[in-house]
Amino acid sequence: MRLNGVEIEDTFAECFDIKIARILITAYDYDLAEIAAREATGFGTSVIMCPAEAGVEGRAKPEETPDGRPGIYVQICHPNKKKLEQQLIARIGQCVLTAPTASAFDALPDAEERFDTGNKLRYFGDEFEKLLDIGGRKVWAIPIMEGDFIIENDFGVVDGIAGGNFFIMGENQPSALAAAKAAVDVIAGIKHVITPFPGGIVASGSKVGAKKYKFLKASTNERFAPTLKERVDSDVPKEVNAIYEIVINGLNIEAVKGAIRAGILAAVRIPGIVKITAGNYGGKLGRHAIHLGELF
Amino acid sequence: MRLNGVEIEDTFAECFDIKIARILITAYDYDLAEIAAREATGFGTSVIMCPAEAGVEGRAKPEETPDGRPGIYVQICHPNKKKLEQQLIARIGQCVLTAPTASAFDALPDAEERFDTGNKLRYFGDEFEKLLDIGGRKVWAIPIMEGDFIIENDFGVVDGIAGGNFFIMGENQPSALAAAKAAVDVIAGIKHVITPFPGGIVASGSKVGAKKYKFLKASTNERFAPTLKERVDSDVPKEVNAIYEIVINGLNIEAVKGAIRAGILAAVRIPGIVKITAGNYGGKLGRHAIHLGELF
Amino acid sequence: MRLNGVEIEDTFAECFDIKIARILITAYDYDLAEIAAREATGFGTSVIMCPAEAGVEGRAKPEETPDGRPGIYVQICHPNKKKLEQQLIARIGQCVLTAPTASAFDALPDAEERFDTGNKLRYFGDEFEKLLDIGGRKVWAIPIMEGDFIIENDFGVVDGIAGGNFFIMGENQPSALAAAKAAVDVIAGIKHVITPFPGGIVASGSKVGAKKYKFLKASTNERFAPTLKERVDSDVPKEVNAIYEIVINGLNIEAVKGAIRAGILAAVRIPGIVKITAGNYGGKLGRHAIHLGELF
Amino acid sequence: MRLNGVEIEDTFAECFDIKIARILITAYDYDLAEIAAREATGFGTSVIMCPAEAGVEGRAKPEETPDGRPGIYVQICHPNKKKLEQQLIARIGQCVLTAPTASAFDALPDAEERFDTGNKLRYFGDEFEKLLDIGGRKVWAIPIMEGDFIIENDFGVVDGIAGGNFFIMGENQPSALAAAKAAVDVIAGIKHVITPFPGGIVASGSKVGAKKYKFLKASTNERFAPTLKERVDSDVPKEVNAIYEIVINGLNIEAVKGAIRAGILAAVRIPGIVKITAGNYGGKLGRHAIHLGELF
Repeated sequence: MRLNGVEIEDTFAECFDIKIARILITAYDYDLAEIAAREATGFGTSVIMCPAEAGVEGRAKPEETPDGRPGIYVQICHPNKKKLEQQLIARIGQCVLTAPTASAFDALPDAEERFDTGNKLRYFGDEFEKLLDIGGRKVWAIPIMEGDFIIENDFGVVDGIAGGNFFIMGENQPSALAAAKAAVDVIAGIKHVITPFPGGIVASGSKVGAKKYKFLKASTNERFAPTLKERVDSDVPKEVNAIYEIVINGLNIEAVKGAIRAGILAAVRIPGIVKITAGNYGGKLGRHAIHLGELF
Repeated sequence: MRLNGVEIEDTFAECFDIKIARILITAYDYDLAEIAAREATGFGTSVIMCPAEAGVEGRAKPEETPDGRPGIYVQICHPNKKKLEQQLIARIGQCVLTAPTASAFDALPDAEERFDTGNKLRYFGDEFEKLLDIGGRKVWAIPIMEGDFIIENDFGVVDGIAGGNFFIMGENQPSALAAAKAAVDVIAGIKHVITPFPGGIVASGSKVGAKKYKFLKASTNERFAPTLKERVDSDVPKEVNAIYEIVINGLNIEAVKGAIRAGILAAVRIPGIVKITAGNYGGKLGRHAIHLGELF
Repeated sequence: MRLNGVEIEDTFAECFDIKIARILITAYDYDLAEIAAREATGFGTSVIMCPAEAGVEGRAKPEETPDGRPGIYVQICHPNKKKLEQQLIARIGQCVLTAPTASAFDALPDAEERFDTGNKLRYFGDEFEKLLDIGGRKVWAIPIMEGDFIIENDFGVVDGIAGGNFFIMGENQPSALAAAKAAVDVIAGIKHVITPFPGGIVASGSKVGAKKYKFLKASTNERFAPTLKERVDSDVPKEVNAIYEIVINGLNIEAVKGAIRAGILAAVRIPGIVKITAGNYGGKLGRHAIHLGELF
Repeated sequence: MRLNGVEIEDTFAECFDIKIARILITAYDYDLAEIAAREATGFGTSVIMCPAEAGVEGRAKPEETPDGRPGIYVQICHPNKKKLEQQLIARIGQCVLTAPTASAFDALPDAEERFDTGNKLRYFGDEFEKLLDIGGRKVWAIPIMEGDFIIENDFGVVDGIAGGNFFIMGENQPSALAAAKAAVDVIAGIKHVITPFPGGIVASGSKVGAKKYKFLKASTNERFAPTLKERVDSDVPKEVNAIYEIVINGLNIEAVKGAIRAGILAAVRIPGIVKITAGNYGGKLGRHAIHLGELF
């Protein structure tokens, strides 16, 4: 199959289950909401070595937010529910409570599974905290230096999807990168998904384990390394010299599919893109498969 | 003492010892270097609940960098050397190696104490990695999807300073915040320091332990909470309705002093600022004291 | 009337007729589209001394654009149709044609009145230009250094509204400014309007003519100058020390009303805001009146 | 000659004389200074159809500015002195006076030739304006809505250089663009120069007059149009598919040379760059020649 002249490989992205919390951070304006959101979701690309996978989902208009202020949705994800709860406490407590003018509301009000993160963090108020109602939400007002920090009492958790992905193969590094950036830009406009890697883009791929260094859990995937294409059994086409992956987490499989679709459509519009493919482990590791061919 | 009509309290900022690594991230351009730098230093406001304190120090011109590309200096800090080393591996491995076009160089070449972080991460190359010399540095080239990831073999660590600080008291929240932003902007132009909190600004202060919830290690400092000033024995002046703190970590005490000085000079220029003070624990916890009055 | 405790004065914003062209600039990604959009709409705050009033309206998702790329809508406005046409030629020719990866499409396809700006600019192609169809649009492809510049043959013009406004009065400059920024942020999410002043905010107000310097067409409105409130017959309340105006142009009166409403709702949420009012000339100069009280 | 493997053509950039004014815009912080600076320098790529050539030069630290606030230097350029003066009045009066918290100071204090722009704009104060001394400068304080607008009485003008340039030829559009962006980023760190085009980059080149449309003063330079390379006598190498030009104006020829040198060094580090050249008219139009080969 070809889109805009670019080959779309007949393969699938293999996705995994993950627990996701979704927080709505409001502030005076979008710049301030983004300051809190970026700090709270940093160091959050992959649970291989980061304490969570996290990212900015997008903007909430004032009419969507309980306090009528501009807002930003973020997602924090972890396969382990207990670790996710710890991350919520730490990331909200250290990066939103401390951020200028920021408040933290739940953005999964219909989720049955819930963390009482606000109830735990309110102890920071040392009994000066107060229970309030804002827009029908049960929130805590904790007196701090800038005034009162507002946090909702509890936050929903859902069973979401991690590892949605596609690979962009370019004739040189700048073309693959420009396509990756275009894809991330477009995905940023889609609800319910995040792209947790730096700038939404992944420069490195890995295989499970290693061939030479047996003590490793993961190592570079040499089959997708352009500088090795002459030396190993390679999946890099001859005219390709750089590859970027876009990794997408989302609240549900439909949202992730929509993001992959939109991202690919954006990527193939950039000159110098040779091929689009996706990453999987033959279906052995994740229970969700998104076939690229079925998206178009 | 008064600066631009604003009272500077006769007190001191109490600072602590911390281990600091300093990394120079280079990329195609500053935007791309910043994408890696922001991800690598996120979730890094305070070691109370973050795995490290981390922040962006500033830009490196191409002539300062080993590869002649634009660069950004970041600092990663932890009181515990072992934990700092783990953070270096995780933050570079997950947030710089994965970031588009980014390379990681040591920015403390004269430090005697060193981590061989590059030597540890190079195993990701599964024996395809190669040792190179770039600008006189011993670096590893690890084949990944975008090409080769370049990382220096080892990174220096120094005994730095954490918790440099001052407090900005404003007649309302926007004035205190505008002054805090002005201070952070100016400090961003100073070498060797970072402001690790969100946007460089701290909206909440804490005291050691708690009065009511005895199980807490830290709780809100009600003496600095403007919404409580009528109810408790308060340090908030009558005309003050919001306070922000600027926290500064740095490679040495002189750099931190310079940052506090420049930050205060910027803050007092904003209308509505009533008073500048600083945080300390009477000298019981940290071994460095920076007296505000001696800075001017 | 009061909103969030802030007085909304019982007055009206007086608006004027203006001709508006609306251009959809597409590019690889939003950053690149914005580079073209900002250059093309700069030096465009007021036709008093700028050659046009111009601003960025907002983003277009790829599915809204003829070429499937991310886009940004801009508006260029002038009361005089001929001058507006000249501005379109100059601003597209100098700031979009020259901008990396940018294309220029008409964003008022239903407008009956039209400029053949693309047909005029295509002569730059020196007979190498070609007529194409992109997404059902008649466009010109003009060979340039980066490849082909794409511009639609003709652009619609409508009778729009200029000078929609409201004033934010704050107890100090930072509070009035934070409220103005919050208002502009929220208005940026509303379709069909622009805020043409720097950052969307106006720091100065004017009256028609002058009292002392008779040769002037416009001079400062001393009744709204906080630093003169003790010296002149002033409209500045005693507790107010700074005022910002938000000026809104839009395709129709309903869009402008919606923007004023949303902007005021955002502004009154910022601490330190004392009063909201609006600017008019008693109805003598503009034929549209927007009464603040009727918006809520 | 080759740099990093890229051919540097043995040719020269032809530059022109131009009058330049340099303004230091200060504000609360860099974001606010930049808002004024971007509006004041917009619609300012080339005097062919823009009313001036204008751009942001770079940041001024608080210790460099008369009022101790963060600042941004901008340049406004025109070959005609009278038109430059008009542009200064219009751009400062409409885009700096109206911008939140912005002040306008002269940044060419040693220039003998001077415009009394501040003295002309102060009439806007309608006799409420006052003469003050700030940091040894003679400035006017004009009462406006946000408080007082501060503008220096007069501004220096110097004989500067326009049209410094080099061309980046890439194997595809994204590579040429990434190199252009890297070059602009690096040039932004160099004193006394601006890159007036959108994002600092020029996507189109022109020749004097036209071959087919004789009424035109300028038309596309088909010799540098990659999509025409098979159809015309072309200067586009076979493997090149996109070209961007960086245009530099500066206070003196040395600054422009330094910028071209630094920009080329940055550009050749990006993968996919085939050749660097420069634009000239055989020395017939401009009196300054910068030979690329002499820069290295």
